[in-house]
Amino acid sequence: MSNASSSTAAAEPLTVMGAGLVGSLLSLYLARRGHPVQVFERRPDPRRTGFLEGRSINLAVSDRAWRALEGVGVADDIRQVGIAMSQRIMHDAKGQLSYQPYGEDGQAIYSVNRGHLNRTLLDLAEARPNVQVRFGQQCLGIDLRRQQLQLLDSESGQEHTEKYTRLFGTDGAFSAVRGALQKTERFDYSQHYLEYGYKELTIEAGPDGSWQLEKNALHIWPRGQYMMIALPNLDGSFNCTLFFPYDGPESFASLQTPAQVTDFFRRVFPDAEPLMPELEREFFEHPTGSLVTVRCFPWKYDDDVLLLGDAAHAIVPFYGQGMNAGFEDCTVLNELLDQHGDAAWPTIFAEFQQQRKPNADAIADLAVYNFVEMRDRVADPRFLLQKKIEAKISAQYPGRWMPLYSQVTFSHTPYAEAWAAGQQQEAIMARLLPHIQQEADYERAEVQELVKQEMAVKG
Amino acid sequence: MSNASSSTAAAEPLTVMGAGLVGSLLSLYLARRGHPVQVFERRPDPRRTGFLEGRSINLAVSDRAWRALEGVGVADDIRQVGIAMSQRIMHDAKGQLSYQPYGEDGQAIYSVNRGHLNRTLLDLAEARPNVQVRFGQQCLGIDLRRQQLQLLDSESGQEHTEKYTRLFGTDGAFSAVRGALQKTERFDYSQHYLEYGYKELTIEAGPDGSWQLEKNALHIWPRGQYMMIALPNLDGSFNCTLFFPYDGPESFASLQTPAQVTDFFRRVFPDAEPLMPELEREFFEHPTGSLVTVRCFPWKYDDDVLLLGDAAHAIVPFYGQGMNAGFEDCTVLNELLDQHGDAAWPTIFAEFQQQRKPNADAIADLAVYNFVEMRDRVADPRFLLQKKIEAKISAQYPGRWMPLYSQVTFSHTPYAEAWAAGQQQEAIMARLLPHIQQEADYERAEVQELVKQEMAVKG
Repeated sequence: MSNASSSTAAAEPLTVMGAGLVGSLLSLYLARRGHPVQVFERRPDPRRTGFLEGRSINLAVSDRAWRALEGVGVADDIRQVGIAMSQRIMHDAKGQLSYQPYGEDGQAIYSVNRGHLNRTLLDLAEARPNVQVRFGQQCLGIDLRRQQLQLLDSESGQEHTEKYTRLFGTDGAFSAVRGALQKTERFDYSQHYLEYGYKELTIEAGPDGSWQLEKNALHIWPRGQYMMIALPNLDGSFNCTLFFPYDGPESFASLQTPAQVTDFFRRVFPDAEPLMPELEREFFEHPTGSLVTVRCFPWKYDDDVLLLGDAAHAIVPFYGQGMNAGFEDCTVLNELLDQHGDAAWPTIFAEFQQQRKPNADAIADLAVYNFVEMRDRVADPRFLLQKKIEAKISAQYPGRWMPLYSQVTFSHTPYAEAWAAGQQQEAIMARLLPHIQQEADYERAEVQELVKQEMAVKG
Repeated sequence: MSNASSSTAAAEPLTVMGAGLVGSLLSLYLARRGHPVQVFERRPDPRRTGFLEGRSINLAVSDRAWRALEGVGVADDIRQVGIAMSQRIMHDAKGQLSYQPYGEDGQAIYSVNRGHLNRTLLDLAEARPNVQVRFGQQCLGIDLRRQQLQLLDSESGQEHTEKYTRLFGTDGAFSAVRGALQKTERFDYSQHYLEYGYKELTIEAGPDGSWQLEKNALHIWPRGQYMMIALPNLDGSFNCTLFFPYDGPESFASLQTPAQVTDFFRRVFPDAEPLMPELEREFFEHPTGSLVTVRCFPWKYDDDVLLLGDAAHAIVPFYGQGMNAGFEDCTVLNELLDQHGDAAWPTIFAEFQQQRKPNADAIADLAVYNFVEMRDRVADPRFLLQKKIEAKISAQYPGRWMPLYSQVTFSHTPYAEAWAAGQQQEAIMARLLPHIQQEADYERAEVQELVKQEMAVKG
């Protein structure tokens, strides 16, 4: 704020609509650069009420989010309340386990509580003198020409109008800011739902807050057309999510009574069901969430409105990258501000959407693709063998082969590049695997020769 | 209305939002079945003011629309004010012409004035005692649970609420009814714009209202990346439409001054430009229209709201099928009412969307595909040769080969079936054409043998 008196531009506050994860992190980034930031949030203050309504309780934090959190100095604090998950553990229909490490030694994704993370970011943002957050402000409409937000204060029931010069829409998958852009000329937009819904359930903590399943893992019960996953919580419990068809023989529609639910879980998740004493209550009390992919373009309106996070690119949760992608938006925007200076908004908005759009599209595709992998392919021994062989190639050719999952999760390679490289590697694996029946076959001269040839062409 | 006193269901009016082409035709169909129909339209009465705002002036009416118009007894009246177009005439950059008949002898599409058609349908609808049309009623929102429309009367400025039991959304590509459905759970939606806009222009009538180009034709100036078309009017003029990129070396962005416009038209449309004395004024006064494809699903909400026409499936204009598809919606709905009876709305709504959705998707794809054909392929002598050979096969194998264009335009084959058959025939033509250099080659024994083989496999 040192230049506030010398520049009217700097004194004009930036406006952020939405104080969820991306909105609160973005506000922090903008405030650290000296901009006055006015934040509006539809929901009440989560530090007073909790605002989880229908959202996942746990998030899988990986490298892109860590980098964004490091940029505002909060990564270490968050890591201390996260639980490292270094592997997938698959539970088959007999309760037998198989294991797949996520990356190399020491690499892990982190189970973090969404509410805690959001509250921490809000606390940090509000601690800055140049940030003001107003909760309970529903956006009823936006006059894009006059640069005015029409807001409804939910406490007083009064409508009020707020001017903005620069508006950042971080108000999520059902963004009101995007809704205003959608009505402008030539705005491409799509929202597409999977035929699957999800239900959040709980595996109870054991005695003295112990974990009844392996703590440092993401658990998957892959069942072909559907699956359940579980992420560890600090209190010893696991937050489970059932991803399940809306309709069909095994579906939400087919489970109508408590007895049907229990019978079904006993039959298909026999090792989990005994750990879920609240199953019947939770199944019927918790809402069934839907799974949407939102794409749009442009992400900006003139030089004064910009969409970030889910508002620009909501994706399904199967790669654990929704928040990571939204946080990476903040990193990229901050880099562009470094590069072009804090007054070059037209350039920055244009470059931001140009750079991020293909990556948002790629992670949207990857997330849908990974649903099939998680609910089906991870149960196939050939798939697990493939992952082991890939790890061997990666070790033998350092820096020349990074598995797709690692590129997405443990690198900052743009998603679109990761996806392209992953498809190339998948094609190579499809040619190699017919020659490999077990892990040891990798050392055979014939296989080594094939790998050598493939790597020579891969370049 | 004969059973109005014996049935409360029949006394409950059906509500139609939108009195454009599809809304007014639908109202007529419903009213003829005895239902009281309440119609609301955002715009003022077009019979008093004209409501063309940014819409095409001419429509190409073909068999699907004729059948729908016959169903309400108005086809002959409309045909008398239409102009038959039995062929495409292509104008090259030197003003040379080439010709391509649209179908067999006597087959034609008809150039019809949109305003006239709309007014005629409205007159017919309002002539029925059980139809009430209210103009200047903007739909501000819909309470789907309470089945209430929130309307703004543009004359008085007063908002009012109207209950409905059955609501038909025929309010076009930017449908407010669809806007309400879009906010419900699991509603798939996309709007996608081409990178092209369009501009309506005029070729003047000649002396004494004569036509300065061949009257009974659709004229095309195909130029690869862009094109102009012209449809005849009754007064001797032609309504031209330039389909042109928004940006690039030859684009709306590149034509900024009257002199640039005239120079450009003289260079690329040398035979048309002298016939367009109002070109410079029209180019800058007329709005640049955008070209959107809208897809969504479901088309219904519970058993009480149904979308039809552009509200459900807006398409680009390059197959001349937008209105035809919307009118076919009315035909299909009327057939389902015949089949299931006028009280079976749940069944009818469900079957309607099930039956029509794949066909709407197919014509949306076909319309985009035909843009490339019209602006580029029709200028290729090989393409015109292919069309001639196809006509010969069609004549030699009656009932076994109908060109794709004919299936779409001169048949009632569902669009999805037409598209599938068209793709199969296109593959056959791709195999035959290397053996054919000129029209006469078709009679060669080798070619006849190949055709015979292909037709045997085609089945």
